[in-house]
Amino acid sequence: MKTTKNDIQQWFQALQDDICSGLEKLDGKAQFEEDLWQREGGGGGRTRIIQNGVLLEKGGVNFSAVYGETPAAVQQAMNLPPSNFFASGVSIVIHPISPMVPIIHMNVRYFEIDDNLWWFGGGIDLTPHYVMPELAQAFHRGLKSVCNEYQLNAYSRFKEWADDYFYIKHRQETRGIGGIFFDNLNETSEKTAKNNIWEFVQAVGNAFVPLYQEQCEATRNLPYGDKEKNWQALRRGRYVEFNLVLDRGTKFGLDTNGRTESILMSLPATAAWQYKYTPQADSAEAFTQQYLRKGIDWLGITP
Amino acid sequence: MKTTKNDIQQWFQALQDDICSGLEKLDGKAQFEEDLWQREGGGGGRTRIIQNGVLLEKGGVNFSAVYGETPAAVQQAMNLPPSNFFASGVSIVIHPISPMVPIIHMNVRYFEIDDNLWWFGGGIDLTPHYVMPELAQAFHRGLKSVCNEYQLNAYSRFKEWADDYFYIKHRQETRGIGGIFFDNLNETSEKTAKNNIWEFVQAVGNAFVPLYQEQCEATRNLPYGDKEKNWQALRRGRYVEFNLVLDRGTKFGLDTNGRTESILMSLPATAAWQYKYTPQADSAEAFTQQYLRKGIDWLGITP
Repeated sequence: MKTTKNDIQQWFQALQDDICSGLEKLDGKAQFEEDLWQREGGGGGRTRIIQNGVLLEKGGVNFSAVYGETPAAVQQAMNLPPSNFFASGVSIVIHPISPMVPIIHMNVRYFEIDDNLWWFGGGIDLTPHYVMPELAQAFHRGLKSVCNEYQLNAYSRFKEWADDYFYIKHRQETRGIGGIFFDNLNETSEKTAKNNIWEFVQAVGNAFVPLYQEQCEATRNLPYGDKEKNWQALRRGRYVEFNLVLDRGTKFGLDTNGRTESILMSLPATAAWQYKYTPQADSAEAFTQQYLRKGIDWLGITP
Repeated sequence: MKTTKNDIQQWFQALQDDICSGLEKLDGKAQFEEDLWQREGGGGGRTRIIQNGVLLEKGGVNFSAVYGETPAAVQQAMNLPPSNFFASGVSIVIHPISPMVPIIHMNVRYFEIDDNLWWFGGGIDLTPHYVMPELAQAFHRGLKSVCNEYQLNAYSRFKEWADDYFYIKHRQETRGIGGIFFDNLNETSEKTAKNNIWEFVQAVGNAFVPLYQEQCEATRNLPYGDKEKNWQALRRGRYVEFNLVLDRGTKFGLDTNGRTESILMSLPATAAWQYKYTPQADSAEAFTQQYLRKGIDWLGITP
């Protein structure tokens, strides 16, 4: 069966519905509010924002499907001739209230040029304010089993890609414990049929709610105080730095006159910066900091 | 008299001293802490940070003088051949505690390539959380009188340049009430001697303390509450967006492996984001918002 852009777009839209209802159930109180928007050159999206919940402080689950003439900025960045493009995807960032609960991000997307060039991209990564090795391991195990269904070495390929992508170069630290990241997946790069890649992308999308639920259930009732809230605010500051300085999706959106409120839904409700902040030796914060680096074998560690 | 890079560097260093003692006097309690740093390829700087004062919450006054082989990123960005460079300057961002007191920024800098190409750049701009037209006018009057000593049309040229530079394109708003901005000033572009340009840059540097003092004295005793603190946090969010997404100095610093803590001293202690925040009609916040646009003739308005 041929997977058309129409199928893909409809599936992404249904994924947005599923994830929103999953997150509402997880929160127990807050509901998503929806904004529909249209893009001048063609297409549009459904931005859904959740705020001030019991568990979730601020987050967004965005669906979009846009098309038309490839914008000049995109042509340049991707080295494309004048062409028509189609892009659809779901993009999520969730900031919880409790500093004990991790921030999560997911994105799955499909891109097509002139109805013949196409590729998939996406990823999930987790940013715990406090790294708990057993939960980090559980997260990576979950991602590995999604990847194993696809290709034997997919997890290690995409895990390494995430380590490189979610790296805050100017801080020499990763933004969290990573996850998986992939881009430009097509028949040539993956040596497999479009349907297989598409099934993998769907499996990534479907993994989001159960993976985050597991993290939330294990952490949402942990106690915390001002010290933990302060640290959370500083870690959120780093999240802001990553998203505004380094994230390609954000840059792409702002450069192509995307809907700013939808793009910047990824920013937390509050963030903080302190000159030369260094956690105290042997503190829980210092424990976390040592894990903010590339190349950790989360499946191999003994939590 | 020939103005050498040595003279310029020494003067900038003395300016840093003067401004730090002026700001300490203005605050009345907090003192700058100093960090000296060295750059691997040559040169270094003196970062001075003030925190938790009576008036000033977080700010930095940085001096640097760096030289060596022109970094690849700079060569590319400025379209230069392999060369040696020298760059020195003072760069300031001050975030006050009170939302009634404006944020201020100043930068003065000198750049030299291979001992023959040279130019000056710089600017001052003001970001009031609450625009008060009479104080905005006073600020621009002060800048105009500095510019008038230099060239007849300098104020209008550099004011327009600031409107364009300090513009948050993705928000379609200016970051504050602007000020002056200039770059690439040399004998060719300015049709005047190096000494005249240098005197102007010195006059800009010297204007900083009196200009900010005037703003602080008029606003530091104004009452405020939670509503004003919330708005301040949101306006600081926009300041973060400008600095991380758009500011060329920040980008240059991060791209060339500058000292991250010195570059990002410009970020506020705290900031906030709220999805689709819009001030209430006829509120003080809405009053401010209407002034966040280019092309306002601050000298011509009737406050």
